[in-house]
Amino acid sequence: MDHLTRQLDFVAEAGRLSGVLRHTELTDPPRRENSAEHSWHLAIMALALAEHAPAGTNIATVVAMLTLHDLVEVDAGDLSVHAPAAEQERQHLAEQVAADRLYGLLPAEQGAELRRLWDEFEERATPEARFARALDRLQPILQDVRAGGRAWRGQGVTADQVLEKVQLIEDGSPSLGEFARRLVERAVADGILAAG
Amino acid sequence: MDHLTRQLDFVAEAGRLSGVLRHTELTDPPRRENSAEHSWHLAIMALALAEHAPAGTNIATVVAMLTLHDLVEVDAGDLSVHAPAAEQERQHLAEQVAADRLYGLLPAEQGAELRRLWDEFEERATPEARFARALDRLQPILQDVRAGGRAWRGQGVTADQVLEKVQLIEDGSPSLGEFARRLVERAVADGILAAG
Repeated sequence: MDHLTRQLDFVAEAGRLSGVLRHTELTDPPRRENSAEHSWHLAIMALALAEHAPAGTNIATVVAMLTLHDLVEVDAGDLSVHAPAAEQERQHLAEQVAADRLYGLLPAEQGAELRRLWDEFEERATPEARFARALDRLQPILQDVRAGGRAWRGQGVTADQVLEKVQLIEDGSPSLGEFARRLVERAVADGILAAG
Repeated sequence: MDHLTRQLDFVAEAGRLSGVLRHTELTDPPRRENSAEHSWHLAIMALALAEHAPAGTNIATVVAMLTLHDLVEVDAGDLSVHAPAAEQERQHLAEQVAADRLYGLLPAEQGAELRRLWDEFEERATPEARFARALDRLQPILQDVRAGGRAWRGQGVTADQVLEKVQLIEDGSPSLGEFARRLVERAVADGILAAG
């Protein structure tokens, strides 16, 4: 198969991410968010919140990373960040298999290059990956607050569980982490997130 | 207002792009595509089809440009590429007003910088903008073919109108332009796009 045919197969398969529903809700109109529009919103956040990344972070890399970060959900589906550890482990394995298949649709060298960018995101070892992960944790908190905490209540999530995720935000961006911590405290004070 | 507050206002307003419905249809399940997921799909196309851009094209810039390219539709809505010239002109003006408001939500210098990237896309004067525009024209053709031409029939679009858009694809990427031209010819031969 020539390069273009393989690349367009990849593009078509990627398009199925619009059909993967997340556990967060949009408000206008109210409906579950899909992983394609979520990924786009994170790319916008990277551009808008760039100055909250540690100095020297390559924002273009962050944007590309966030564009790709949920692609594996085409096969593996979305799992709530609050799911139990055993489910998270199963999800991790399913995502590895999905990455093999999806990035394998591309010409070999190109597929390996884009796969490396996703691996980098998963491994959280670079400032770019840590900032991207921080945004990926911040966005659902912003959405959940905006939706009046409905998704939190639906999953029985408490403040402690959300604050555990806030650590990942602090790790990628101290200023966004501090902001997220205050946001969670206010959500508890406002009665839209259960304490404890 | 501090920077973070302004940036998060921008992020929240941008999120409304998920509520803007386009004239193209997704197939799995069949529904109209929204402009947020469309923008994400184009960013994926930029990464996947990078080798079809003219040598020296900065793909990171293309990805950022495509992430932002339809943001103005939050206020201005989507207009079919096949709409009459008078409507296109009205849309152009509405998008300028929308850009003033939306990029104006950001801290001044940052807003101006992202606005310049959108202006660059609109002006089509750089290889990055021409490649981004080529992808923006190619994606609906791929979607329309996949949906069996239903969106074309719904709007009474003929092959000549689609081929007019193919010129923009050729302008940004000769190889993708040639591919799109063959795709349109095949759509006519297959009876899913009206000749003429």
